[in-house]
Amino acid sequence: MKKNTNELYAAYTRLMQKAADINYAAAVLGWDQEVYMPPKGVTHRGQQLATLATTAHEMLTSDHYGNLLQQLWQQADLGDVEKNNVRLSLEDYEKNKKLSPEFVDKLSRLTSEGFNAWVDARKKNDFSVFAPSLTAMIALKREQAELYGYKAHPYDALLDEYEKDATVAMLDPIFEGIKAQLPVLLGKIKTAPQVSNDFFHRHFARQQQWDFSIDVLKQMGFDFEAGRQDYSEHPFTTSFSNTDVRITTRVDENNYASMLWSCIHEGGHGLYEQGLPGDQYGLPLGSAASLGIHESQSRFWENCIGRSLDFWKFFYPQLQKYFPEQLGDISVDDFFKAANRVIPSLIRTEADEVTYHFHVLIRYEIEKALIEGSLDPKDLPAKWNDMYEKYLGVRPGDDKTGVLQDVHWSHGSFGYFPTYTLGSFYAAQFYERAKQDLKGMNEQVTNGALSMVLHWLREKVHAHGRRYNSEELCERITGQKLDPKFFMHYVEEKYKSVYGMK
Amino acid sequence: MKKNTNELYAAYTRLMQKAADINYAAAVLGWDQEVYMPPKGVTHRGQQLATLATTAHEMLTSDHYGNLLQQLWQQADLGDVEKNNVRLSLEDYEKNKKLSPEFVDKLSRLTSEGFNAWVDARKKNDFSVFAPSLTAMIALKREQAELYGYKAHPYDALLDEYEKDATVAMLDPIFEGIKAQLPVLLGKIKTAPQVSNDFFHRHFARQQQWDFSIDVLKQMGFDFEAGRQDYSEHPFTTSFSNTDVRITTRVDENNYASMLWSCIHEGGHGLYEQGLPGDQYGLPLGSAASLGIHESQSRFWENCIGRSLDFWKFFYPQLQKYFPEQLGDISVDDFFKAANRVIPSLIRTEADEVTYHFHVLIRYEIEKALIEGSLDPKDLPAKWNDMYEKYLGVRPGDDKTGVLQDVHWSHGSFGYFPTYTLGSFYAAQFYERAKQDLKGMNEQVTNGALSMVLHWLREKVHAHGRRYNSEELCERITGQKLDPKFFMHYVEEKYKSVYGMK
Repeated sequence: MKKNTNELYAAYTRLMQKAADINYAAAVLGWDQEVYMPPKGVTHRGQQLATLATTAHEMLTSDHYGNLLQQLWQQADLGDVEKNNVRLSLEDYEKNKKLSPEFVDKLSRLTSEGFNAWVDARKKNDFSVFAPSLTAMIALKREQAELYGYKAHPYDALLDEYEKDATVAMLDPIFEGIKAQLPVLLGKIKTAPQVSNDFFHRHFARQQQWDFSIDVLKQMGFDFEAGRQDYSEHPFTTSFSNTDVRITTRVDENNYASMLWSCIHEGGHGLYEQGLPGDQYGLPLGSAASLGIHESQSRFWENCIGRSLDFWKFFYPQLQKYFPEQLGDISVDDFFKAANRVIPSLIRTEADEVTYHFHVLIRYEIEKALIEGSLDPKDLPAKWNDMYEKYLGVRPGDDKTGVLQDVHWSHGSFGYFPTYTLGSFYAAQFYERAKQDLKGMNEQVTNGALSMVLHWLREKVHAHGRRYNSEELCERITGQKLDPKFFMHYVEEKYKSVYGMK
Repeated sequence: MKKNTNELYAAYTRLMQKAADINYAAAVLGWDQEVYMPPKGVTHRGQQLATLATTAHEMLTSDHYGNLLQQLWQQADLGDVEKNNVRLSLEDYEKNKKLSPEFVDKLSRLTSEGFNAWVDARKKNDFSVFAPSLTAMIALKREQAELYGYKAHPYDALLDEYEKDATVAMLDPIFEGIKAQLPVLLGKIKTAPQVSNDFFHRHFARQQQWDFSIDVLKQMGFDFEAGRQDYSEHPFTTSFSNTDVRITTRVDENNYASMLWSCIHEGGHGLYEQGLPGDQYGLPLGSAASLGIHESQSRFWENCIGRSLDFWKFFYPQLQKYFPEQLGDISVDDFFKAANRVIPSLIRTEADEVTYHFHVLIRYEIEKALIEGSLDPKDLPAKWNDMYEKYLGVRPGDDKTGVLQDVHWSHGSFGYFPTYTLGSFYAAQFYERAKQDLKGMNEQVTNGALSMVLHWLREKVHAHGRRYNSEELCERITGQKLDPKFFMHYVEEKYKSVYGMK
């Protein structure tokens, strides 16, 4: 690149990194809010987060920045990396410009308020406490969809924020496929004798659970010099750079299934964040591709690897050392089966890999209806419960185990849930490919040698940042776009070995 | 106030609170950096803090803000609170304008770099690792002094940042007084039989130390719904609003004296932050008066209250319950004496109330010399060690227990140390007054009823924010400016009861 191009690009980088500094600062405040903040801290935290959000938004929507991007885009000698960064930044700029600073401020405040109302509603186990905030949030998200614009469905505009280029037209067939095919698999599983996971409910001391989770995360390759794990009510991953990645977990001493796979899941997210190119700090190529791809990483580790028999052949003896009394009488085979027990249930985050997607389906259909205005928020608990009965055959007895279980809507995250299913499906497709690419992968996993897997994910996924959208990335890695058949194949194979059916 | 004044004041408040949001966000990042951040997080944390610092600085030095202040200042109908806020903000504005955004950015970066270099130097126990950063920092601070301007001594310009209106001319006589009077007291103490604190070095389990410290902090009135305590290498207090105040502590299981008084000290700082007027968030009247006054609060609690026999008459039986084996054979009287043992030592933060001020004196004299350019930073370890020998009769054997012991210079905090002595002196003067104002105070303390003391501090000190500078506040509370005789009287009385001399 010539001197002029270099100078323009340097100015662009400076501005982007300054905005990133502020957004990452907001991430620190967000992390603290859910991990350590004392209750009364909430009074000003929402305002502080709103100020950071609007400050970064102002930087990234300024005419100065827009002009810089336009100028850069016209430089014929932009390098490949530089060109991709500028291309993606221009797209973001056009999108961000559609939201006024007032809108961003309002959204940020309502997010904090909504979160607090949701926490309060959960405490009181009463949806009506959360309803006013939610109603206001839905109105704001519909406004946001109109501001962004869309071709077919207002929900498309919101989806795009989490999963670029994803649409209702792309998702509907996927969820129709789930509705058609998963009940067949579930039917087969039901006819087989149920596997037991009773021993998960023995007493597993908090500290030992924690220590073993750290062992597993280290073995996965999570760098504790560039990250840490803390407790929070709801596990999540956030990062303040690729050298400071925070994952959180929770422990239930009377349910071993509550913590470990959640740790592996967040560890998968964390590995993605640690694997993003550090020299692209604050730039699109230093960011994750999409939420669906992010979720593919967590699901890959949690389910494809972390719930496989191979994985436990290595780790189970170690786990037994932590819990000789609780697990001394349980074989690795029975542990593996328990870890993959299928049973319809009320709580999404505790669901198995099959019924999970009905949880997402329900949220997807509800979100579409809320955003298109065909569902009144006040009717939400009844609608929710009816759908659980219809799709899963279980009916929540209260709001806490029903419509109030997830934080997402309080954050205004409409369009987020479908990325969980996309993530699982991408994970299965990537896993199939990894097994082909990596000769002896299963054997390596059996020996606890997980670095081969991590290396493959680093090269295939992490290194690219946002250069490719999800479908492009999937095609690059597997030779084709997302095809749910890989997931179907994956679950059918798995449950054959768990339930012994043909 | 009329409509126009109200509107101007609202615009001023919005801008101030936005800047405060960003500065408090920086405080969250600073807290995290010292409490939880993984080592590699340091790479970007410095840059993130620099961005926040420059962003807030830009807001508070903008012409728009300056014009707003000037306009407000000319409104005849400003209320009393409003007038004081605008007056102080104008002073800050004039001062802030003297630093360019580039200077603020440079200072913030050098602060992070300097901190890391200092940590590294301590690890290696080698001052020369820290010397280059320190030399650069001193040059920058001298530049800052020139930019601020001063009448008599460049050090005055730096002092003013921590202790408004304090000068070398004010401090020199105070430290001369220390040099003249404290050795006399020390001499008397030396002739008395030394008291024992051997039992402090029995084994005190970490968790029990922590639990008792929480008990004490609660009894002091620290609101754990609006704050928390965490571990850090060096105890400190920071706040993100008066409803989110963070204190930190450290534990040494083989030295009970390491933790508790440090907790009470930070608790005193924390109570001040929690007591600041919440409706003045982000405004001068919602901020602390000065570092000296801040320190008066921590010393008041740590020393005047927390090292008094009355205090321990209440708390000692509770402490004995936590440590029956360690303290069962020690009387409250002996515990009180041990807590007040005087002995010259190398480490400032472990010093007793008498020798402490020689530690400050040494730093004060060194800082003046560094800033006026009469001392070369490379000669610092030798100079330091010589002064310790001269004033305290002890000579550090290495840099870690010598010139590298304090973090302050790495942060560029020149002019900070004298506020420790001012704080002790203000504390003694306030304490004397409190005893007069509050009939039966000592009795209340003996019963653990500390709310009377807190209430007095809230009313006399906390409620005013920055309305008065230290000397004005001192005069308001005690009827006269700072007079070291109160401190001398306080220590003489105390050591009579500890060492039994006349």
